[in-house]
Amino acid sequence: MVDLPTGNAVIGQSGGPTAVINQSLAGVVEGLQAGLAASGKVRQIFGMRHGVRGIAKGRTKGLVDLTSLTAEQLEAVARTPSAALGSTRDKPDDIYCAQILEGCRDHDIRYFFYIGGNDSADTCRIVSEKAAEADYEMRCFHVPKTIDNDLRENDHTPGFPSAARFVTLAHMGDALDNASLGGIKINIVMGRNAGFLTASAALARGLRETDLDPASRPAPHLIYLPEVPFIMDEFLADVDAVYTKLGRCQIAVSEGIRDGDGNEIGPQLMGTGEVDAHGNVQLSGSGALGDGLAGVIKNGLTPEGGKPPRVRADTFGYLQRCWTDPSAVDAAEARGVGRHAAALAAEGDAGASITIVRTSNAVDSYRSAFGRAELSAVARHARHMPDAFVLGRNDVSAAFYDYCLPLVGDLPDFTRL
Amino acid sequence: MVDLPTGNAVIGQSGGPTAVINQSLAGVVEGLQAGLAASGKVRQIFGMRHGVRGIAKGRTKGLVDLTSLTAEQLEAVARTPSAALGSTRDKPDDIYCAQILEGCRDHDIRYFFYIGGNDSADTCRIVSEKAAEADYEMRCFHVPKTIDNDLRENDHTPGFPSAARFVTLAHMGDALDNASLGGIKINIVMGRNAGFLTASAALARGLRETDLDPASRPAPHLIYLPEVPFIMDEFLADVDAVYTKLGRCQIAVSEGIRDGDGNEIGPQLMGTGEVDAHGNVQLSGSGALGDGLAGVIKNGLTPEGGKPPRVRADTFGYLQRCWTDPSAVDAAEARGVGRHAAALAAEGDAGASITIVRTSNAVDSYRSAFGRAELSAVARHARHMPDAFVLGRNDVSAAFYDYCLPLVGDLPDFTRL
Repeated sequence: MVDLPTGNAVIGQSGGPTAVINQSLAGVVEGLQAGLAASGKVRQIFGMRHGVRGIAKGRTKGLVDLTSLTAEQLEAVARTPSAALGSTRDKPDDIYCAQILEGCRDHDIRYFFYIGGNDSADTCRIVSEKAAEADYEMRCFHVPKTIDNDLRENDHTPGFPSAARFVTLAHMGDALDNASLGGIKINIVMGRNAGFLTASAALARGLRETDLDPASRPAPHLIYLPEVPFIMDEFLADVDAVYTKLGRCQIAVSEGIRDGDGNEIGPQLMGTGEVDAHGNVQLSGSGALGDGLAGVIKNGLTPEGGKPPRVRADTFGYLQRCWTDPSAVDAAEARGVGRHAAALAAEGDAGASITIVRTSNAVDSYRSAFGRAELSAVARHARHMPDAFVLGRNDVSAAFYDYCLPLVGDLPDFTRL
Repeated sequence: MVDLPTGNAVIGQSGGPTAVINQSLAGVVEGLQAGLAASGKVRQIFGMRHGVRGIAKGRTKGLVDLTSLTAEQLEAVARTPSAALGSTRDKPDDIYCAQILEGCRDHDIRYFFYIGGNDSADTCRIVSEKAAEADYEMRCFHVPKTIDNDLRENDHTPGFPSAARFVTLAHMGDALDNASLGGIKINIVMGRNAGFLTASAALARGLRETDLDPASRPAPHLIYLPEVPFIMDEFLADVDAVYTKLGRCQIAVSEGIRDGDGNEIGPQLMGTGEVDAHGNVQLSGSGALGDGLAGVIKNGLTPEGGKPPRVRADTFGYLQRCWTDPSAVDAAEARGVGRHAAALAAEGDAGASITIVRTSNAVDSYRSAFGRAELSAVARHARHMPDAFVLGRNDVSAAFYDYCLPLVGDLPDFTRL
């Protein structure tokens, strides 16, 4: 019999919401209800309003009691996109983490669950260390979430498959639209410094084969990832070659593309310097990168004395993370990581980051399992597209299809004449 | 027995594609197969590649033979978004229409079907008149299509309900996202000079009641239509009131909003003058209006010496017309208008624009029927939101809910804590 502290549990949600982050919330709650609460080790289960703002002493968002939520209530929350408790972009520093610990002590919190990305894992790590220093027994668990898919130690991250499904479906519909009227179409995709989400546009092609000649690929003809240096002259040459041959060109561009010196293209075209609390430049919620690239193409590809090509840019924006048709695999796994966190706590784990491991691949035989990693192994670090997923300067490899196809769920089958 | 010419039929698709325009194509083809082709009056059924470019003599896009498409092939085409034959933005003038007539004579076309908006109805009208002048017997039918919902003589237009469904679902997900993190969120919606599509954002509220106080409404809190003069100071005051009270504000804005003098706001903020072949300013495929309004809010609502509010703008763009999850009502009606056009032709109609009439309302008892109007009654004119659908300067009325809810199909049910 493991030795477990007795007290209360708290759960929070942090960072950009996803279509399935509430599945993880429901998973932790039902896991606690069936485990630590049933065995009497947890008396009350609290939810933090707007992440750590809800528990940190002196910050006033407060807690909500989740102890007695019914299975039906949990199910309704689970299928709702975005953070049902509210989220936050705060990245706690040392003083803030001390306030979190104080708030936890005030509420006799012994089990701390935080659903989020690598910043959230870092918050768990710092709070956990502060608790140890203060000799206050509290176990901190990080539950993974991010559409960027950039957490280490994970095959993929909850939230990513649903966002990838949206990006794939969007490119399928948009490719048909582009084929109807012709011209050049740019789609700006989220993902910041990781190219996984932009890469998922390739799944819109409905095939696994790749072709080194962009004009011989089904749309999207060109895919630009933050992991591959974006050279403007090469970009123009790529677009020109496809457009000259086909009269149309669909292009997927990551919001985080960088030039050969590693500087982001977005701010160079935008002329904006807005940064968030983590020091990151604002890449989303603006159409400036797409409009800037459209302008570059119009200027660069207008023939002497001729008409500019028809160029349009869509920035998919926040719909990528809140669209109401999640991947079924994603919904199940997001629920699973929440349950697994509660199960690890009941087994006496001292604190960990939950991970997803792929145990079997292929669309029909895909399986995954849940594991654990040390908080420090996931905190702060970011993961990028491995080289094996990249093909040349503007496409993804067959290995990426194998990786991503099982995650997004059934895709429709379309026909043109 | 009506006296009908014997020859061939041609079908084309024009203007911006929709999620269900191929339903109408399939409807015309299967209607002809079962009617005029079965009775021997139509020998071959052609499809125009890229609208009238496919048939106009001297323009080279060509025709495709649709005569023997099987029911299974038609079904696969019907469920595919966008124009399966290709579309065009060409608006034929007198010379162009003479070329269309020449092409029709070359192919012994006696039945001409054109799927599109009021410009397409006008093309039908001109070609029809030219044929009469030349004493060439050819019957021209306009099959309605436009996500803008701006065709006269119609209760609503195929393509609109599916786009409205997308806009509703997008605002549902985005409202939850906005509630998670707070701040001000602007969503730019298509529809040009008609506010119907932007108005459909209101359905995201999940209720029919309206409230004159924007902060007492569920999101979207503010809806700006092209039919209501957009006064920048009033806009800022509206946003300020909601944001001050709630800490968040979701705003749906039509791409076609105009100031008190009737001038479009978009170009004023964009500084772009790009126009299409119809002389319309380019409103879509750019994030400039949303980014411009976001800038206006940041400048206008930043407290003296304080931090600007978090403002983000998404421009929904082409996904609104090509999203792969159409409204079931829309798919069925789009199929129906195509079939009805073929049926009218078989009955000896001399040429008409097909219309949709609502025969019974309410979500559970909604019914529609198909009718006819003269081409000249639909051609060129545009319809706008009736006054009865508008509430104050920033909302829609209960009558609009009654109008729009039966069209968009089942909506999900979400819960926050």
